[in-house]
Amino acid sequence: MNVQGKPYTTLWVELDPEALSAARRPFDLHMIDQRRLPHEFTVVALADHHETTRAIREMIVRGAPAIGAAAAYGLAQVYAEAPLGAPRGRFLAEGFERLRSSRPTAQDLFSGLEAVKKRVEGMPQEEQAAAALREAKRLAAESADRCRRIGEHGARLLRDGCRVLTHCNAGWLACVDWGTALAPIYCASRAGRAPSVFTDETRPRLQGANLTAWELGQEGIAYEIIADNAAGHLMRAGEVDLVITGADRIAVNGDAANKIGTYEKALLARRHDIPFYVAAPASTFDLNCARGGAIPIEERSADEILYAWGRADDGRFTRVRLAPEGARARNPAFDVTPAELISGLITEHGVIPATEEAIRSTFPGR
Amino acid sequence: MNVQGKPYTTLWVELDPEALSAARRPFDLHMIDQRRLPHEFTVVALADHHETTRAIREMIVRGAPAIGAAAAYGLAQVYAEAPLGAPRGRFLAEGFERLRSSRPTAQDLFSGLEAVKKRVEGMPQEEQAAAALREAKRLAAESADRCRRIGEHGARLLRDGCRVLTHCNAGWLACVDWGTALAPIYCASRAGRAPSVFTDETRPRLQGANLTAWELGQEGIAYEIIADNAAGHLMRAGEVDLVITGADRIAVNGDAANKIGTYEKALLARRHDIPFYVAAPASTFDLNCARGGAIPIEERSADEILYAWGRADDGRFTRVRLAPEGARARNPAFDVTPAELISGLITEHGVIPATEEAIRSTFPGR
Repeated sequence: MNVQGKPYTTLWVELDPEALSAARRPFDLHMIDQRRLPHEFTVVALADHHETTRAIREMIVRGAPAIGAAAAYGLAQVYAEAPLGAPRGRFLAEGFERLRSSRPTAQDLFSGLEAVKKRVEGMPQEEQAAAALREAKRLAAESADRCRRIGEHGARLLRDGCRVLTHCNAGWLACVDWGTALAPIYCASRAGRAPSVFTDETRPRLQGANLTAWELGQEGIAYEIIADNAAGHLMRAGEVDLVITGADRIAVNGDAANKIGTYEKALLARRHDIPFYVAAPASTFDLNCARGGAIPIEERSADEILYAWGRADDGRFTRVRLAPEGARARNPAFDVTPAELISGLITEHGVIPATEEAIRSTFPGR
Repeated sequence: MNVQGKPYTTLWVELDPEALSAARRPFDLHMIDQRRLPHEFTVVALADHHETTRAIREMIVRGAPAIGAAAAYGLAQVYAEAPLGAPRGRFLAEGFERLRSSRPTAQDLFSGLEAVKKRVEGMPQEEQAAAALREAKRLAAESADRCRRIGEHGARLLRDGCRVLTHCNAGWLACVDWGTALAPIYCASRAGRAPSVFTDETRPRLQGANLTAWELGQEGIAYEIIADNAAGHLMRAGEVDLVITGADRIAVNGDAANKIGTYEKALLARRHDIPFYVAAPASTFDLNCARGGAIPIEERSADEILYAWGRADDGRFTRVRLAPEGARARNPAFDVTPAELISGLITEHGVIPATEEAIRSTFPGR
């Protein structure tokens, strides 16, 4: 999508996989630094899989599909950095584990790692790095394409002038391109149906105020930021037609883990008979997870609650303390929305019910 | 309650009403500056009713019962500042109207103004200032006493080790003393029942992180600050036993307007069979308001959403911009919780059902 009129994806590798075919050769993964948006637009170059692991953990990149692509590229870096010969196995295993444990909730992380590993396993050592990078690039392109199809299917749910509420950022910055929850909005907008968006600011990390607002502004979509507390009031006042969120992991029964607060919006939407959709590609579905209660929920640092980060009037990126010295805080980063509250799942294969039957028949053989 | 071990009330006038009996004499209203808490504890002196009006509008003082006391004192200032003779009527009417329009939602504002006006009307002009100040002091003392009784009644709802969730600040800072939602917690704590509190940070103005956390810390009550988004997750995990909030206005059918987000917590509590109580004194009930839909909801500046205020690492009180330049925001400051979601109303007369019958029989002749 566009940044100041110029097309970007969230992350990319410039190196051609064929250049990796002869030997070990570390390569850079480039990504937009999402911690500084909307105040600064910068691209970082991550020189090895350690830096990529740190970028995932510290949320330079975030959003389930984007984490999946970053992990796939990170594992390609592991293969390109690994020594040939006997010590290789241990290096690969440690690199894989390092990336695997960078974040606990997003299923796409594991999907991306497993896809690259499966593609490369059994190949001669000399061919693995190129094959891994080729597979990571293929996965990233496929991920963007799946999101575009999510947008096309989801756009059919948006009538003219539709007022959509979304939570957190499930836009193109959370993916390789297009987004999940925002893709239907971009598609509807290009079809001339003029959607508008209420974006929850999404404390504690404010991805709605920071990222969703920025994305929508760059694409010329009308939006208003609201406090997370305001969704109920606006729904009650009849100002919301539809809710769409992304997901970090969807269990086989249709329960969906997503950014903390999503469950509250789903419950409000049900109360007010407003359709509530979750948009996600195949990589977010965990067919080995029976129900939402089995999804691990990341608890992040209390500092995310005790402080806010932004641009001070002097232009500097600054944190301000909100709470008293010595204050304690709890910071669960995700919650689970039960399938019964979800009107439908917007996938690259179409809009399906949030049921085990529909999920298994949409993603057979996984 | 205590600040660094020393007892304080939220606002007070030092002047003895008897000193006003002879002549016009402007006097100061003192109040804790709640905009700087928890980072700085300062007391401001408001020299006339214009300054008091501004303090209410700019939220140096906030919270329904505290606004009521401030308005009562502000009207006493009007009587003390008004000229004697013919121009007096217009001065009094303009001062009354200035205070009345400072905030739109809290019923206590109107209750406080009406009580002082009613007490003074018909008196000789020379006696009005002293009588108004005497009445304002009586109302403030009565308000603190009502809150103490709310605490005693409400504390019976808290069993040993009870985990209470609260929203915004309905503590002593929101009242003259004791608080509404927090009064039962203070009483239960003094009775040795060791309650603990989850305090929603309460964006946009963060009164939960700023004020409730500070109050509870000063009184030695265990608490954790959470993002407003996290209440649903914690309720679902079985970590919340009870929800208590304050109110800005309660309609005769039991619908309660309170800080934006309260409605969301009430709906979650119902979903998880957690009792949800609203604590408020007589001054918060509007027996002329048939239902919540008739309560005016204040929309405040978008800047409250686009920025956060706090203490930077260099110690300075600083605002940081959260959203892109040019971003738009909506900022409704209150919402209405329908009576059907309220387990009971904790009043100075006991815990009553949120029904018209119970409200009318508890507050007869109003």
